[in-house]
Amino acid sequence: MRITTVGLDADDTLWHNETIFRLTQDRFRDLMAEVAPPEALASKLAEVERRNLALYGYGVKGFTLSMIETAMELTGNAAPSRMIAEILAAGREMLNHPVEPLPGVEASLADLSNDYRLILITKGDLLHQEQKLAASGLGELFVQVEIVSEKDASTYERVFARHGTGAARAVMCGNSMRSDILPALEAGAYAAHVPYPLTWAHEMADAPQGHPRFAELGSIADLPAWVRGLS
Amino acid sequence: MRITTVGLDADDTLWHNETIFRLTQDRFRDLMAEVAPPEALASKLAEVERRNLALYGYGVKGFTLSMIETAMELTGNAAPSRMIAEILAAGREMLNHPVEPLPGVEASLADLSNDYRLILITKGDLLHQEQKLAASGLGELFVQVEIVSEKDASTYERVFARHGTGAARAVMCGNSMRSDILPALEAGAYAAHVPYPLTWAHEMADAPQGHPRFAELGSIADLPAWVRGLS
Repeated sequence: MRITTVGLDADDTLWHNETIFRLTQDRFRDLMAEVAPPEALASKLAEVERRNLALYGYGVKGFTLSMIETAMELTGNAAPSRMIAEILAAGREMLNHPVEPLPGVEASLADLSNDYRLILITKGDLLHQEQKLAASGLGELFVQVEIVSEKDASTYERVFARHGTGAARAVMCGNSMRSDILPALEAGAYAAHVPYPLTWAHEMADAPQGHPRFAELGSIADLPAWVRGLS
Repeated sequence: MRITTVGLDADDTLWHNETIFRLTQDRFRDLMAEVAPPEALASKLAEVERRNLALYGYGVKGFTLSMIETAMELTGNAAPSRMIAEILAAGREMLNHPVEPLPGVEASLADLSNDYRLILITKGDLLHQEQKLAASGLGELFVQVEIVSEKDASTYERVFARHGTGAARAVMCGNSMRSDILPALEAGAYAAHVPYPLTWAHEMADAPQGHPRFAELGSIADLPAWVRGLS
C-alpha cells in the first residue's frame, strides 16, 4: 500500500477553535466598547498578537496576555480592574470550553485507523491540546500525538520520518493552507484541505494550483475515500 | 553496554530557572508592598498557582497570569493599571532572559554524548523550552527533545521505550526528586539527583533510601563517571 500514514491537524479540523476565539473577541469588543470602536480594537489586538507571537507562541494563555496588553495600551495604562478581571475570566473559559468533534470526524478517523497510522500534528499550548484531545474522546485513534511550536516543511519531514514511513507515503489533512497544506506538500507528502468556515488571518494563503498531490475536500467525510484512492 | 540512554531534565539541571522565578517574585513583592505583606503575598500566589496548575500547566505564561490574578484578588479587583503593566513586563522579561548552561553541563553532556543517546525531558511552555534549548547552544548534543505536560512513571516508560532501548537501560538525571527521580525509578530506570540550591515547593519530595538504582551527585560533572560505572 502506497500510503501508510495520515497526519491530522486538530484545531478547526477535528473540533471548533477559531469560533471560540471569535466569540471571545466579541466579548472583548463589548467589554472595550467605551474605549475603542470595534475596528480600532481588532486592529490593535491583531498588532499586539503579531508582536507577541515569537515570544508567546500559539494558544489561549498567550492570547489572554495579548488581550490584557491591548486593554492596557488602548487605555493609556489605565484599564479599569473590572476589565482585567473579565479578560482573565474569558481566557479561563476558553481553556474550559467543552470539546466536541466536528461532524464526520469520528467516523472518518475510525475508518482510516483500520488501515493507516494516524498522527495528530498540532500547534498550541501543550497541556491545553492534550486536554482537548482527551475531552474529544478521539485519543485512542492516534498512534502518535505531536504538539509542535511551528509547522513548516521540516516539521512534517521529521514527524513522518520518525513515526511513519516518510513523507512520500503520508497524507496531511487540515484546514490551514499556510500551516497544514503548503509545508506538507513541500515536504513531499500528499495534502487534503478541508476548509473551516472561519480562518485566522495569520493562517491564510492561496491554494496550490493543479498540484498532483493536493486535494480540496468538502468535508472530512471525504478523506477516507481520497486516501484509499491514492494507494 | 548496559546503559544506552541518558535522559536529562532542563530547568535547574542544565540552566537556571527557579532563580529567575524567585527574582520575579521579589520584584512582585516590591510592587505589591503597599497591598500585602510578603508572607501573605507569597501564600496567596502559591494558592493561585496551585489552583491554576491543572488549567495553565507549567511555564512563564501561566505564572504571569497567576501573578495578575493574585494582584486582582489582593486588591479586591482594584489593582492599579501600573501594577498590571509591571507584571506583564516582568513575564516578558522572564521569557527573554538569557540562557547560560550551569557549570559543568557542557563538558558532561559532550562527554556522555560520545557513548550514549541523550534525551532532553522537560515540562513547561513548548515554545519557551525550545527557545531556551536553542539559546543554550546544547541542542546538537540531544538526539531527542521531549517537552511533556507531566512527568510520571508512564512518561519515562514511554520516552525511553520509544527513543532508547527501554527504561531498564536508561538513566534519568535532574534536580527534582518529585518529577525527575521518583517516577524514573518507578519506571525501572536508574536516576541521578543533582540538587539545585533552590527548589520550587511543588517539586519537593524525600530522597529514596538505599535504592539500588539511585545516586545523589554533588554536581553534573560527576554524572559521566557514574553512568559508565553502571555499564
